[in-house]
Amino acid sequence: METRTADGPFLPPAELLDYFRDEKNKKFIVASHISPEGDAIGSTLALAAALRATGKEVIAYNRDAVPHFFSFLPGSEDVVHTLPGNTEDYSLVLVDCSKPFRAALEGVRFSRTLVIDHHEPDSYGPGETPSHLWVIPACPAAGLLVFYIVKALGVAIDRQLAENLYTAISTDTGSFRYDNTTAGSLEASAELVRAGAEPALVARNVYETWSANRMRLLCLAMDTIELRDGTAVMSVSQEMFMSSGASMEDVDNFTGFPRMLKDAKVAVLLTELEDGTLRASLRSKGDTDVRIVAQKFGGGGHKRAAGFRTSAWKRNLQGLREALFKEFEGE
Amino acid sequence: METRTADGPFLPPAELLDYFRDEKNKKFIVASHISPEGDAIGSTLALAAALRATGKEVIAYNRDAVPHFFSFLPGSEDVVHTLPGNTEDYSLVLVDCSKPFRAALEGVRFSRTLVIDHHEPDSYGPGETPSHLWVIPACPAAGLLVFYIVKALGVAIDRQLAENLYTAISTDTGSFRYDNTTAGSLEASAELVRAGAEPALVARNVYETWSANRMRLLCLAMDTIELRDGTAVMSVSQEMFMSSGASMEDVDNFTGFPRMLKDAKVAVLLTELEDGTLRASLRSKGDTDVRIVAQKFGGGGHKRAAGFRTSAWKRNLQGLREALFKEFEGE
Repeated sequence: METRTADGPFLPPAELLDYFRDEKNKKFIVASHISPEGDAIGSTLALAAALRATGKEVIAYNRDAVPHFFSFLPGSEDVVHTLPGNTEDYSLVLVDCSKPFRAALEGVRFSRTLVIDHHEPDSYGPGETPSHLWVIPACPAAGLLVFYIVKALGVAIDRQLAENLYTAISTDTGSFRYDNTTAGSLEASAELVRAGAEPALVARNVYETWSANRMRLLCLAMDTIELRDGTAVMSVSQEMFMSSGASMEDVDNFTGFPRMLKDAKVAVLLTELEDGTLRASLRSKGDTDVRIVAQKFGGGGHKRAAGFRTSAWKRNLQGLREALFKEFEGE
Repeated sequence: METRTADGPFLPPAELLDYFRDEKNKKFIVASHISPEGDAIGSTLALAAALRATGKEVIAYNRDAVPHFFSFLPGSEDVVHTLPGNTEDYSLVLVDCSKPFRAALEGVRFSRTLVIDHHEPDSYGPGETPSHLWVIPACPAAGLLVFYIVKALGVAIDRQLAENLYTAISTDTGSFRYDNTTAGSLEASAELVRAGAEPALVARNVYETWSANRMRLLCLAMDTIELRDGTAVMSVSQEMFMSSGASMEDVDNFTGFPRMLKDAKVAVLLTELEDGTLRASLRSKGDTDVRIVAQKFGGGGHKRAAGFRTSAWKRNLQGLREALFKEFEGE
């Protein structure tokens, strides 16, 4: 399977489109992974709206609340967090993930399960395989796959669809800065802007809605940045959370700060969780494969983005910091 | 004249193209404003390369050095900082500015002066009017105008042209986050990526090449952020420059940090210059017209980005901070 980012356009499988078109399939639940980000929420809302436009009865579901960054998205207030009693009457469409447990839906019975995802494929146990599976790791965002589905279904892209899909694509490409930014993703985005998406509105909501507490936390965390031999480490302690009043979700994307350093080949964010366990997020700006190090510590991920949790350095940020400097030495 | 961002494509005037096509016009100097940023450098290098491809003899000129952020751009090492003796044999093409003084070229004699710009037009004194003027304030970047010229001239877009034009467009739209991000700019960018521009390479060079000193300066500056009634102010003192070892150019784009605050409608960066004069950069995230305030202090700019310098609060960052809070009160 092609795993590098490719240019698309990606054509949805005929069987998947036929399933959506079939009038017998009336009820859908569109869901995504827990702790949803822009691609998960945007894809969920866009596919739900598109299927409704074709006459389906659709529930947009996520176990977790829509993060406040994404509450501006049209339809976000309609995301529900509890399932109807008769789930077996519904087809489940998982977007931006490929196994029900990622959406906290393991063991729930649905009429069928369909998967639309751009991550490396999960393997399925016996009887677990979804009835329809469209997994394209080469595609920069699940929202881009949904975009191609919407077009293939002939649904007109209105402002609501455009805003959700644009947000999905632009956030998952880091505002068109990550390696997965393709010509195809820019081209789709151009079409979505023509259809009413406003890039500046999306950017203001996603990147410029920090709380004062989060800003305080960043100030404290910035002071911990240390660069050694190409590895930049930033850490956030429980004490910092308490003195700033910030919460765990506020460290999202803090890895972006140590990686701004010119001489950083690897950026690390260490976070002390409430129980003293440490979480490490590893990012590579170049050729270093951070997954290898994450795996040594019991974690995983991709070459350029990996992570792990450990109890071995409980409440000892400095100890783990030294251990990671040592691991990346000479990389 | 249409001043809102419009979608394009923008068609270069036939007279401008004819001038470039005319074999009698052989020698060109392509120049841009002093303190050049991505759009200035990218447009300069792209137009110079494109004209060379059509057989012209071209000098790429800037009074100032190419900032290290942009030294990765193909051709950047060929930008010269001194003029040939016989400037009157050359046609000057100003990109991303519309008057010679902005390029520190006032009083220098050229065969002709041509202007390709996307700022609000300057007014010209008697005898100052350029022979060819293509000024489209609605266009998000000078690089996008150069893109349309390159295409109109039939020059094939190779990797060198693509990388320079992509950098020009993506930096001037704030990585497709500013209000000036149009469908046309995304579409052109898609074409440039197909032609070899690498978005992640550009982003790493532009946004992730901070010096340790600059990071230290940011840490100090972050601590000064104060939000009052919708106005967020950050300040940088001479003392901070000295203790961090950073230099004046290191505060570029620091306004991006106070504006991350959700409740900030206006973001202000105050910088103490070496002689104690204060410089203020004002940014609006919404409807507040910061130009009006900048004008009161003797400066100018646009509705959403304006600034001024003042000696009235010499070495008194706190005083100017209070004065600005007062100005924006109740906005």
